[in-house]
Amino acid sequence: MEIRLDRASPVPLARQIRSQLERLIREGILAPGVKLPASRELARDLGVNRATVSLAYEELVSEGLARAHVGQGTFVATHEGKSQALRPNLSSGLDWSALFSKGSQLADADGRRRASASRGVPSAPGLISFAGGMPDSGLFQTDAFRRVLNRVIRTEGTELLQYYPVGGYPPLRQFLARHLLKFGVEARPEEILIVNGSQQGLDLIARVLLDPGDFVAIEEPSYPRAIQVFRAAGAELLPIPLGSEGLRLDVLERVLGRHAPKLLYCQPTAHNPTGLTLSPDARRGLLGLAARHGMPVVEDGFDGGLFFAGPQTKSREWPPAPLKAADASGLVVYIGTFSKILFPGLRLGWLVAPRPLLERLEVAKQLSDIHTSPLIQAAVFHFCQRRLLERHLSRCAAEYGRRRAILLRALASRMPKGVTWTETQGGFSLLLRLPEGMDAEALLPSALERGVAFTPGSVFFVNGGGESTLRLSFSSIPAQRIDEGCKRLAEVVRQAMSRPSRRAEVERSAVPLV
Amino acid sequence: MEIRLDRASPVPLARQIRSQLERLIREGILAPGVKLPASRELARDLGVNRATVSLAYEELVSEGLARAHVGQGTFVATHEGKSQALRPNLSSGLDWSALFSKGSQLADADGRRRASASRGVPSAPGLISFAGGMPDSGLFQTDAFRRVLNRVIRTEGTELLQYYPVGGYPPLRQFLARHLLKFGVEARPEEILIVNGSQQGLDLIARVLLDPGDFVAIEEPSYPRAIQVFRAAGAELLPIPLGSEGLRLDVLERVLGRHAPKLLYCQPTAHNPTGLTLSPDARRGLLGLAARHGMPVVEDGFDGGLFFAGPQTKSREWPPAPLKAADASGLVVYIGTFSKILFPGLRLGWLVAPRPLLERLEVAKQLSDIHTSPLIQAAVFHFCQRRLLERHLSRCAAEYGRRRAILLRALASRMPKGVTWTETQGGFSLLLRLPEGMDAEALLPSALERGVAFTPGSVFFVNGGGESTLRLSFSSIPAQRIDEGCKRLAEVVRQAMSRPSRRAEVERSAVPLV
Repeated sequence: MEIRLDRASPVPLARQIRSQLERLIREGILAPGVKLPASRELARDLGVNRATVSLAYEELVSEGLARAHVGQGTFVATHEGKSQALRPNLSSGLDWSALFSKGSQLADADGRRRASASRGVPSAPGLISFAGGMPDSGLFQTDAFRRVLNRVIRTEGTELLQYYPVGGYPPLRQFLARHLLKFGVEARPEEILIVNGSQQGLDLIARVLLDPGDFVAIEEPSYPRAIQVFRAAGAELLPIPLGSEGLRLDVLERVLGRHAPKLLYCQPTAHNPTGLTLSPDARRGLLGLAARHGMPVVEDGFDGGLFFAGPQTKSREWPPAPLKAADASGLVVYIGTFSKILFPGLRLGWLVAPRPLLERLEVAKQLSDIHTSPLIQAAVFHFCQRRLLERHLSRCAAEYGRRRAILLRALASRMPKGVTWTETQGGFSLLLRLPEGMDAEALLPSALERGVAFTPGSVFFVNGGGESTLRLSFSSIPAQRIDEGCKRLAEVVRQAMSRPSRRAEVERSAVPLV
Repeated sequence: MEIRLDRASPVPLARQIRSQLERLIREGILAPGVKLPASRELARDLGVNRATVSLAYEELVSEGLARAHVGQGTFVATHEGKSQALRPNLSSGLDWSALFSKGSQLADADGRRRASASRGVPSAPGLISFAGGMPDSGLFQTDAFRRVLNRVIRTEGTELLQYYPVGGYPPLRQFLARHLLKFGVEARPEEILIVNGSQQGLDLIARVLLDPGDFVAIEEPSYPRAIQVFRAAGAELLPIPLGSEGLRLDVLERVLGRHAPKLLYCQPTAHNPTGLTLSPDARRGLLGLAARHGMPVVEDGFDGGLFFAGPQTKSREWPPAPLKAADASGLVVYIGTFSKILFPGLRLGWLVAPRPLLERLEVAKQLSDIHTSPLIQAAVFHFCQRRLLERHLSRCAAEYGRRRAILLRALASRMPKGVTWTETQGGFSLLLRLPEGMDAEALLPSALERGVAFTPGSVFFVNGGGESTLRLSFSSIPAQRIDEGCKRLAEVVRQAMSRPSRRAEVERSAVPLV
């Protein structure tokens, strides 16, 4: 604790200590709930009598700025939101906004455009939320993971806590090579780079391949943070619409006639937000097109483990193998992640790429953060090795599949005519389309009032558009609440449909979410 | 396992299975040591008799491609380096080198320039290595960390394994706010961003502030991966030499008269590689200069915990407070890390910055990898909260201080005239300068032969230079081997000094390290 005492001052030392602590508390530097140093320690550090510090603490307590817990110590009191207002804003003499890079400005602008739609939904009691596309933490095998982690630190802790080679924990790369074989992807361990979740995979690819002004072809709708990463790199996005079975090859072909994109980003299996899956034929067509045009394809993979249904469920070709499995020309970069199949909080994923590209990705990874935590990598490896991932995944797939089926049934029975949705086959969500002219974001306040939440679809679109769509995630919502959620949503939609002028309504209620 | 059986073929099924597995093993996709699926499982997946799979496995074993362990299963055999050569290189039809971004090319070029000097040193038996600037893993409190991690997963596991807000685990940010107060730095928790080690901190700063062509002032010598990050961002580097007490303000002032750098990157305390520390007066001078020129200062901090000595060890001003502590104009960005004071493998660090900048850093962090593992954050918080960090740090500081003192004594008694070194005061290393004209990298092969290793100093210099310098790290070398290491190094130096033409020698032995 940096407290300066002026021993020549007529102000008593206890008062000096108190007033300096008071300032730190009022300015929010000592945050509510933080423990103050033991009076004995602080007295020793400052070279004063312990009673002097105790006196200062008592005054803080009597002012209501601190609380004393017998046997535990003295803690900063919790005044909700009050303390911080008292601190002058230290936003500094510099005009930072004049210093920000082009990339930062682009990321910020794109982020702002999506901000109101992607803002978190308040968790009100009784709210049924179809927002947020994450696995259900109620299904987490937390304790099994704890035991594995515990074992790994016992046996390999010292090496796993030291610096580590950038490529990753070798047994995990070997495991992934074997795991990918299940889906027909043949990759040697040295063609695999461990990263901090698929987001870092995307980011590294953008760094290594994109210069400002480069074109990037991308499915529309798509994953918002992919759009934002490519934008921040200064790329021009070429949106390719989805048909009923995913990416429209005819449009892509036309686009490739006019532009030479540096890469195509796509989610051919269990696409977010629609849940659509590209057919085996379309996959062959896509790879052929990419090979003819020498265009790298970034495949944001969903490894089939969370795949629920399809037109030919029993067929050998369904769910279709990843593009990477048929990548004869070596132009597909595959992004994989443990976030959806295990725990998002670990931030663990991987890239599969031809060596010449992987070497550059390794350099970029090293500059980004040297390497991914080997402790987490080793724990996940051993979790997988004991087949705990398989077990977890089959439990989850069954449960998510059930929720998906209930959602599709509920939509079919509850939604008014004119509302349509994608026949999701995998992943966590589907995209619903409201009747022409109706705005999903404008509908959200009344939906929240009615106790149901969703994600407005516009955040998944590249340059605006998708205003009449919304994403419903079924992954983290209890099965028994899905029908009620659809009922509420249908009521809100019906109500909006019955209003005379939808357009006017849209404008009036397009206020930012809170 | 993706194995395709042709039931119409005259080739027996067991033979088909064997030959496909053989290919995967020979191509290195099934890596040495990897476990093959249990025969029962594979038989079920392929719809064949279990005996068929067993037969295939037996043939693999008799060929020496696999090993069977009774009760454990069948594993790919370990043929050192043999299997992989058999696979055709899948480097693909694309000419990737034509696709790499400018940033990737710059990073690669800079990396190559440093590659031979920074390449890892082979760990031969008996080698005394002053290379590698890392904490000594022999001092790690691995078991204490294991217990804390265990507890944290038990109590908060479910939330810590889910997606998390980008800023970080709130108690850790509050702890850091309190911790920084010890060094005079006042920061509110919301002015702190948790990142994956100081490397990610640097990288985010470069993203948010640098455009190609911007100038960056930087101490010379400096941390190589900082140089590389700024280069990859397209910045022009302005090296500022160090005097006997660190950064030369007179040179900086002249440079600021000619250029307007976007930022200055510095390590004012326990500088890597020199171990030097900027005096309190020079710090005031530096902040004044920066304020007059409106130049942000990126302070790569070393929080004083690993500070061993100084001219005024007992003084209130020594070790001097971080620049951030006296940052009245809010232009200092502070980078902190747990890598040096705790475990590098966790990849955990933090940034302290004024809010307008921190908001942009948060956006960049989100696009980089969404957030840092909250599990690791929570474990480190509880480790600190139980004062285990303090205890660990005081043990380490005492031990490193002892090693430093032994090294300085050994150098003084062993080194020939004409060899000088920096009087390191903190951190892990010092920089040694050989007599004029002698090349450290050229000296390394004979040093390795003699059983001593170091890092050639040129890797710490911006545009070449520093060829006659080398870094000696004392942090991870047992105290009782330091004197012997210096003795060996002195012999090698003496030998090189006694040769007739040093220059010629330099050229002949400047082969890449292995």
